[in-house]
Amino acid sequence: MAGVPGYEALAETLARRGVDVEAVKAALKRQRIETPSWGYGNSGTRFKVFPWPGAARNIYEKLADAAVVHRFTGVCPTVAIHIPWDKVEDWEGLRQYAASLGLQIGAVNPNLFQDDDYRLGSVCHPDPRVRRRAVEHMLECIEIAEKVGSSILSLWFADGTNYPGQDDFRARKHRMLEALSEVYRRMPPGMRMLIEYKFFEPAFYHTDLADWGMAYVIATHLGPQAQVLVDTGHHPQGTNIEHIVAFLLDEGRLGGFHFNNRKYADDDLIVGSINPFELFLIFNELVAAEQDPRTAETARAVAYMIDQSHNIEPKIEAMIQSVVNIQTAYAKALLVDRQRLREAQEAGDVLEAHRVLLEAYETDVRPLLAQVRLEMGLDPDPVAAFRRSGYAEKVARERGIAVAASGYPGAS
Amino acid sequence: MAGVPGYEALAETLARRGVDVEAVKAALKRQRIETPSWGYGNSGTRFKVFPWPGAARNIYEKLADAAVVHRFTGVCPTVAIHIPWDKVEDWEGLRQYAASLGLQIGAVNPNLFQDDDYRLGSVCHPDPRVRRRAVEHMLECIEIAEKVGSSILSLWFADGTNYPGQDDFRARKHRMLEALSEVYRRMPPGMRMLIEYKFFEPAFYHTDLADWGMAYVIATHLGPQAQVLVDTGHHPQGTNIEHIVAFLLDEGRLGGFHFNNRKYADDDLIVGSINPFELFLIFNELVAAEQDPRTAETARAVAYMIDQSHNIEPKIEAMIQSVVNIQTAYAKALLVDRQRLREAQEAGDVLEAHRVLLEAYETDVRPLLAQVRLEMGLDPDPVAAFRRSGYAEKVARERGIAVAASGYPGAS
Amino acid sequence: MAGVPGYEALAETLARRGVDVEAVKAALKRQRIETPSWGYGNSGTRFKVFPWPGAARNIYEKLADAAVVHRFTGVCPTVAIHIPWDKVEDWEGLRQYAASLGLQIGAVNPNLFQDDDYRLGSVCHPDPRVRRRAVEHMLECIEIAEKVGSSILSLWFADGTNYPGQDDFRARKHRMLEALSEVYRRMPPGMRMLIEYKFFEPAFYHTDLADWGMAYVIATHLGPQAQVLVDTGHHPQGTNIEHIVAFLLDEGRLGGFHFNNRKYADDDLIVGSINPFELFLIFNELVAAEQDPRTAETARAVAYMIDQSHNIEPKIEAMIQSVVNIQTAYAKALLVDRQRLREAQEAGDVLEAHRVLLEAYETDVRPLLAQVRLEMGLDPDPVAAFRRSGYAEKVARERGIAVAASGYPGAS
Amino acid sequence: MAGVPGYEALAETLARRGVDVEAVKAALKRQRIETPSWGYGNSGTRFKVFPWPGAARNIYEKLADAAVVHRFTGVCPTVAIHIPWDKVEDWEGLRQYAASLGLQIGAVNPNLFQDDDYRLGSVCHPDPRVRRRAVEHMLECIEIAEKVGSSILSLWFADGTNYPGQDDFRARKHRMLEALSEVYRRMPPGMRMLIEYKFFEPAFYHTDLADWGMAYVIATHLGPQAQVLVDTGHHPQGTNIEHIVAFLLDEGRLGGFHFNNRKYADDDLIVGSINPFELFLIFNELVAAEQDPRTAETARAVAYMIDQSHNIEPKIEAMIQSVVNIQTAYAKALLVDRQRLREAQEAGDVLEAHRVLLEAYETDVRPLLAQVRLEMGLDPDPVAAFRRSGYAEKVARERGIAVAASGYPGAS
Repeated sequence: MAGVPGYEALAETLARRGVDVEAVKAALKRQRIETPSWGYGNSGTRFKVFPWPGAARNIYEKLADAAVVHRFTGVCPTVAIHIPWDKVEDWEGLRQYAASLGLQIGAVNPNLFQDDDYRLGSVCHPDPRVRRRAVEHMLECIEIAEKVGSSILSLWFADGTNYPGQDDFRARKHRMLEALSEVYRRMPPGMRMLIEYKFFEPAFYHTDLADWGMAYVIATHLGPQAQVLVDTGHHPQGTNIEHIVAFLLDEGRLGGFHFNNRKYADDDLIVGSINPFELFLIFNELVAAEQDPRTAETARAVAYMIDQSHNIEPKIEAMIQSVVNIQTAYAKALLVDRQRLREAQEAGDVLEAHRVLLEAYETDVRPLLAQVRLEMGLDPDPVAAFRRSGYAEKVARERGIAVAASGYPGAS
Repeated sequence: MAGVPGYEALAETLARRGVDVEAVKAALKRQRIETPSWGYGNSGTRFKVFPWPGAARNIYEKLADAAVVHRFTGVCPTVAIHIPWDKVEDWEGLRQYAASLGLQIGAVNPNLFQDDDYRLGSVCHPDPRVRRRAVEHMLECIEIAEKVGSSILSLWFADGTNYPGQDDFRARKHRMLEALSEVYRRMPPGMRMLIEYKFFEPAFYHTDLADWGMAYVIATHLGPQAQVLVDTGHHPQGTNIEHIVAFLLDEGRLGGFHFNNRKYADDDLIVGSINPFELFLIFNELVAAEQDPRTAETARAVAYMIDQSHNIEPKIEAMIQSVVNIQTAYAKALLVDRQRLREAQEAGDVLEAHRVLLEAYETDVRPLLAQVRLEMGLDPDPVAAFRRSGYAEKVARERGIAVAASGYPGAS
Repeated sequence: MAGVPGYEALAETLARRGVDVEAVKAALKRQRIETPSWGYGNSGTRFKVFPWPGAARNIYEKLADAAVVHRFTGVCPTVAIHIPWDKVEDWEGLRQYAASLGLQIGAVNPNLFQDDDYRLGSVCHPDPRVRRRAVEHMLECIEIAEKVGSSILSLWFADGTNYPGQDDFRARKHRMLEALSEVYRRMPPGMRMLIEYKFFEPAFYHTDLADWGMAYVIATHLGPQAQVLVDTGHHPQGTNIEHIVAFLLDEGRLGGFHFNNRKYADDDLIVGSINPFELFLIFNELVAAEQDPRTAETARAVAYMIDQSHNIEPKIEAMIQSVVNIQTAYAKALLVDRQRLREAQEAGDVLEAHRVLLEAYETDVRPLLAQVRLEMGLDPDPVAAFRRSGYAEKVARERGIAVAASGYPGAS
Repeated sequence: MAGVPGYEALAETLARRGVDVEAVKAALKRQRIETPSWGYGNSGTRFKVFPWPGAARNIYEKLADAAVVHRFTGVCPTVAIHIPWDKVEDWEGLRQYAASLGLQIGAVNPNLFQDDDYRLGSVCHPDPRVRRRAVEHMLECIEIAEKVGSSILSLWFADGTNYPGQDDFRARKHRMLEALSEVYRRMPPGMRMLIEYKFFEPAFYHTDLADWGMAYVIATHLGPQAQVLVDTGHHPQGTNIEHIVAFLLDEGRLGGFHFNNRKYADDDLIVGSINPFELFLIFNELVAAEQDPRTAETARAVAYMIDQSHNIEPKIEAMIQSVVNIQTAYAKALLVDRQRLREAQEAGDVLEAHRVLLEAYETDVRPLLAQVRLEMGLDPDPVAAFRRSGYAEKVARERGIAVAASGYPGAS
């Protein structure tokens, strides 16, 4: 197989540094990243949704677009779905349609925030009727997950309050625990419940699961099939996310990621576009945990999912770019010389330890990723290949411009 | 006139402290607060708009609701409008309709963010055709302002970028200055252009007018009819807003406020609901500036406007509560013993100076405000009076539940 | 006993609202607030320590000053000590000296950050020798606590790193757990270990116990005698502290507070001076938990401690002001109509529930506190009484101006 | 001259992309970075100063260390001094000593925060006597600058307040303007006054120059020799610094930088160690401005200064690493394809424009920098060369461990 420009020189340099290049490439080929069905449709802010020509309008078009992302990247065989946005009559048919595109259905995400009933919360709502409705919806999602062959129930709660005094923090916590206990008991063996936390929005005074600690406490109260989901945009400014990742891995409670990037709040931009070093540091913890017997099992089961809102940019191209950015971070993390790192850390050589990370981070891994893609039978540059493919123009012609929905998909 | 319970005792206490209670009451009666037409319609977050029964559906209903707020508070005779949300054929008719309700039209707000053309900005857009459109819209708003008798053109730009490299910061600045120069030249004498800034959202990498400094620089380049508008929710966490207020007053460039409160980002909650002490400190600067010959003229011309998004609470009641909160802050600021404050400051007595503010802040001004309302011929408790009035139930019956729009009014 | 001006009218108003005023006063008389020995000495920022005339120079002078605070407030009978700053040869003698002043020794705080050995951490340090030293110091502090009759070991760790890669997050977590397990096992029955967390500073990349969740996990791994200590200045901007307080109360893991206030980082200003409403909301949770059988035991055992750095203001006066601010928040929280609050919450009446809190918060409780003091045989205005007492001038004369130490007491 | 491994391949790749590699190398050779005398001595946090073996104890040792940094990097010929920390009797002697080491004295920094007089501020202090003292000190610094051949007076004010009400914002602004006007008038032609701003610390309620806008307004009131100095650690979380840089360049008011990095507050870590992409984006604006006739003059006069606090790491090595990080960011910024960038921006191709930056940023410029150093007669790896040189061990032996000062150099 003809090499990629620059790859041979890079491989030699890495080999000289002691890197097992073949092992790195093998890891990169094994990596799997899940894309979200809702990332292919129109979305926006509370101020405006700018409709994109050809944006997918239903789950079939979303799967078709996801298949394109998988075709050009080779590492995105699963697609997260959101109920009821992606609800269909015939789940078996959907599963087969996905399979025909080379895809599987990934995490199932109940929607617990877009019904008029949920104005004051879902599982934390003061009215037991509304909580019942939320529980029933989650139970329905477990059924759907079983039908489509998914083993992940991914829960995000918009529950919270907007004004001091509006509701009782502790009562709401008890309501949530009661609701989730029922859902947890109904999960089949092998299914995991991933519990997402968020600092704020759409609730603006308090959010019932405001940080990883609250999600962790709920998960430990429920049992071992419950874990925490880290959305990289759901933290206060300055938070050291890689530290939280390492902490949760050590506790066996890191279940998965929603990847995206932000500069301000939950901006939902392309992962790695604002702070690529932070993404590298997160993957540095994941790679270290994969290689540590105490954490390897948890680390290998982590679900890597993208969750972004492409407000002004083309959706499919943004998704491919996101996958590339994640691969870049992972590739660099795989190049970290862990032996030298440990030695410098144990010697208390602060700057030398820091430079071991820098040495990996400064490496231009584009030739390595290109070579991996070539060896996987893919175009070495997935963005360029997609742009050349004419797919964007084709769907723009065929689908036209959808009537824009509200800021978030499905909002009305 | 029969007194309000507790008022006489309070008045005596204040008099003993040296407060000219009659002057304070007179100031409270003179205070004017503008409510926004869009605060009476449905609004929400990007995730969901929860429609409120009876929420106003058009400018006529909005004015009717604003008139109710004015009826119960006595200090809200003007209403800001937003074009095109509030656009009508017959502006003279609208003006008369407002007058028939005891209202006038206040600030005119062009919409420069909700058209498909504005995906990459309005006055900063790389395409001159889009910039032209934005300028024409602002010129139209000047005409509307003249027709409805308004002297304030209130400008908020959502312009910004989402990704590093997306556009050229300096080129965008020049485009904005060019556009605003044309608009500025077309303003009649006596009209003011208020330029709003915002830290972020809906743009998530950079906002063209990101802070007061950028709005100030643009205003000084334009001329004396241009001033800065401070939206209390548009700052980074921790920002000392009262300091910015004092600084702009000193430079003669504080034009007005958009009042609301936030705990996290631009949450647009009821003003004073999250941090009432901050609101008091802002009014403390305004009262001080009103009493200082160097700043009195600027201070007295400041436009006090509410700009909130009532996502889960009743809109009219929220607006009345907002007015009450502003009055509370202003009343307490009027009670500050400025002579003692100055003496403590000049003596470097840190805690004594601080306690002079606390002494005013800790005062329960509810009897004072109740008395002011009574003397103005109003019910001493505007919220209770409104709840008793049956108006909310009446409009809920008559108007029903509007089909919810997107997160922000007018979004589609 | 002659009443305080305004008290009778206030008591009548409160009684009309259904408040049991005698019960409120009894609660205020029972409240206990611990002051820290280090708050009486000079302290400052990294840039400069401004020495204060008469600032206490040793534990005997600190206790003398604390006794003055207790004399004027009546609610501060215990004093936290910091080892080795307050180390003496004769602990029994110190205990008796304190008793002679009407004081007891409160929480014992080991110093794990000011030795040259601790450059890279204490219990998380890569070198086992340093960890050993840290453990020995904590064991020594347990002994001291037993000698001085204290039942609280209060732990703050400055442990963290300044650069990505500097050390291994998970290894450090294991080191901490190992060290604290040994210390925990050595605590006598009835002693509690309070584990403090902090967002950042003095470590600037990661802090080993960065948030309440990390402190909570460590505490649950240790056992029921370990609880979390909340320092109100140790959170990211925007954090809803009262929510964390309620969450920890519900889990039975809230052990105590370090009270102070901040606008930016860990500013260590006078509690309640920047955001008094937040302090009220924290006490609102504490009062609610005291009255709830599920949480009453935890709530009543919470240790209320002040931890501030008086950089530019007189230390004793600042401490008295801090006590007053805490009393104010507690008094207002006691006035909340919990029955009406619950009804409004359960009815989903957002603004009515919010106003129940506002009604209590807006109340001027100064006459109530003055009356409580009078009934306790104290001057109704402790700050004024202290200023009149001449104590500040006396110690300034007697002690002079100490040679300023570094930013934090004991730093060299 | 023998090439650096990887350089030839890189040069070819860059040439193919259209980069003028010789011009890039020339620019890198011309770059000048000033190091601060205080970065070579011990420093720390308010909690502890960890003394470093061999840390410089006076201006002569600091210059010696700075000379070593210049010897290994080739781009650091000037050293900023701080008065009175670096005060000597014989300024001409100091100048000659510096020259003998191949150095010149750079910016002169008055100290306006470490005298007991400055507890409540310097130029904003309520007492005119203190303000006089501050002005005299700045005038003295102008004289020193003239004696040592420096053309930059670099001003940072710790002025601010800790409590609401403590002092009058507007009065303080007037005092500052009055003081700086006198200083400005005394500056000789060709000297520049750089005015630094800071969000907070050591003042914790308000800082008199809290943001770039306030520094800008003061500078414009003073005249063209006054400009703004951007310290990269002095902003609220989330601030888009590169935008501010571009804005100030466009206004002709960007005077210089204090480079460092932070994750939380003013952490003063090694520049580029926490967020290297942000540093690249800042240099991207500087390079663009250098190449734009409208801004070239301002851009070329920008003073690049390091201002860091090396708390736990070796000082000289940290300084060399800082220089390398700045060179890396500058080198990558020089590789940006500005023609393609402009085309993508004008076409509104959001992701393509973003990728033009990424293409430069992802490039591994280490071989390029190594080659530049080789061509300058330097070791290609300055950190390794320094570590090999034995200088650190030598000064540790000769100088020993200094008695640690307070957190900030010179604090007592």
